Amino acid sequence: MLSKGQIKLINSLSQKKYRQKNGLFVAEGIKVVKELLNSNFELECLFSETDIFFTQNNKMQLLEANELKKITKLSTPQTALALFKIPQKKPRIIENFIVALDGVRDPGNLGTIIRLCDWFGVKQLVCSLDTVDCYNEKVIQATMGSIARVEVIYTDLAEELPRLNLPIYGTFMEGENVYNSSLDREGILVLGNEANGISSEIEKITNRKIAIPQFGAVKNTESLNVAMATSILLSEFKRR
Amino acid sequence: MLSKGQIKLINSLSQKKYRQKNGLFVAEGIKVVKELLNSNFELECLFSETDIFFTQNNKMQLLEANELKKITKLSTPQTALALFKIPQKKPRIIENFIVALDGVRDPGNLGTIIRLCDWFGVKQLVCSLDTVDCYNEKVIQATMGSIARVEVIYTDLAEELPRLNLPIYGTFMEGENVYNSSLDREGILVLGNEANGISSEIEKITNRKIAIPQFGAVKNTESLNVAMATSILLSEFKRR
Repeated sequence: MLSKGQIKLINSLSQKKYRQKNGLFVAEGIKVVKELLNSNFELECLFSETDIFFTQNNKMQLLEANELKKITKLSTPQTALALFKIPQKKPRIIENFIVALDGVRDPGNLGTIIRLCDWFGVKQLVCSLDTVDCYNEKVIQATMGSIARVEVIYTDLAEELPRLNLPIYGTFMEGENVYNSSLDREGILVLGNEANGISSEIEKITNRKIAIPQFGAVKNTESLNVAMATSILLSEFKRR
Repeated sequence: MLSKGQIKLINSLSQKKYRQKNGLFVAEGIKVVKELLNSNFELECLFSETDIFFTQNNKMQLLEANELKKITKLSTPQTALALFKIPQKKPRIIENFIVALDGVRDPGNLGTIIRLCDWFGVKQLVCSLDTVDCYNEKVIQATMGSIARVEVIYTDLAEELPRLNLPIYGTFMEGENVYNSSLDREGILVLGNEANGISSEIEKITNRKIAIPQFGAVKNTESLNVAMATSILLSEFKRR
C-alpha cells in the first residue's frame, strides 16, 4: 500500500520546484529504471509489480497495478516507477566535443537530443538556464534511459562556452552548407530554441555558422525540428 | 454556433472508420490549415476565430474560442480547425526516390517522417497497410503542414515495391555502414516498425542492407528512434 504522503510526494515531482526541494525525480518503465539502476544515479525508492530488479529490499515496494496507477505520470502506466536522487554536485565540462542547447523548451525534444547524444557518443550536454529541466518526467521518458549515460549540465552559456577554447558551431539559415564544411573533431555544437533559434547573445560567441540545406523544390519557411537537426548534424560531425 | 451534428461529426473523425466513412480529416492551427488550403486538398469546411483565410464564405464559419474548444483535438486549442476531403483516387508511384514504411505505428513518428520527406524533397511516401493512418489528427499535426506536399500511398509493400525496379534499401543491425556505402540516387529507402524493425516478408525483397553505426563507447541494445534514423539516412542519400 502506498501512503498518502508517498502519493503526494510523487505527484509533486511533476513540478520543478518540488523536484529541487526534494532532490528527487521520477523514472518509469522497466527499461528506463534498469538503465538508471545501472548508472551513477542513486536510487531513493522503487515501486514495482514484480520483483525483477534485485535491488536492496528496503528501497523496494511491491505494488498492485491499481496502486501504480495512482502515481504514474503516463497515460499507459508501466509496471515499475522509481525515484532517483538528482545529483547535487555541478559537473565540470571536460569533454572536447559537446552539444549545447540554447533555450530548448519541449521535453520530448530534450529527451530525444539526450538519446542522440548517447548514440553518437557525446557524453556531456550543456544547457542554458532557460532550457527545460532534464529531470522533468517527460524528458526522462523520452531519453529511454540514455540519461544514465549523458551528463546534462545547466549553466550560463554566454559565460561558460568561450572559456572552453573550442570552436563554437551554431546553426543559422545563412550558415555555410554543412555538407561542404570541414568540421573539427573538437568543438561545441549549439542548437537553439524551437521557435526563435539561437539567441543573439549566443550568436555573438559563435565562430562557425552552419546550415542544413533544404532539398525540396518548394522552399517553405518551416524549419527542421531541433531534434531532427541535431541528428543530422551529429551524423555529419561523427561520420568521418 | 456549432450544431450538435457538426460536433458529433468532428469528434467521430478521431476514428479511422469514421474518417473513411465520411471521407474527411481534421487539421488544426493556422499554419497547418494555411498549408492545406494552398495545396491540392479540397476544403470541406473551416471554423475559425478570425477571418484571415479569405476562403469561400459558405465554407467558413466564425466561432468563439469556447465553441472551438468543443471540437479541438489538442490540449492547447488553436484558433482554426478545418475539415478537408481525403483524396479518393489512389495515386501511382511515379517518383524514382521514395521512402517506404513497414508498420510504423506511432502518429508522431509518421508525422515527423512526412516532415523530413518534405525537407529532403521526397515527394511520395509509401506505407504498408498496417502503418498508422496519415489522416489521424496527431499525424496531421506533427507534419506541421508538410502533408500538403508529400503524397502518402498505402499499399501492399511486398507486392508493389519489387515492381518498381529500383534498388531497395533497408536498415538492419548487420547492414553495411551507411557512411561507407555508395548510395544510389534512385531507390527505395525502407524503415521498419518501432519495436520489430523491418518484417521478414519485406527483408526478403530488400537488396541493400545498411546500418547507422553507433558511436557511444557503451553499446546498448536501444536502437535509434525510426524518425531519427530517417533523418540521418535521408541526409546521407541527399548530401552529395
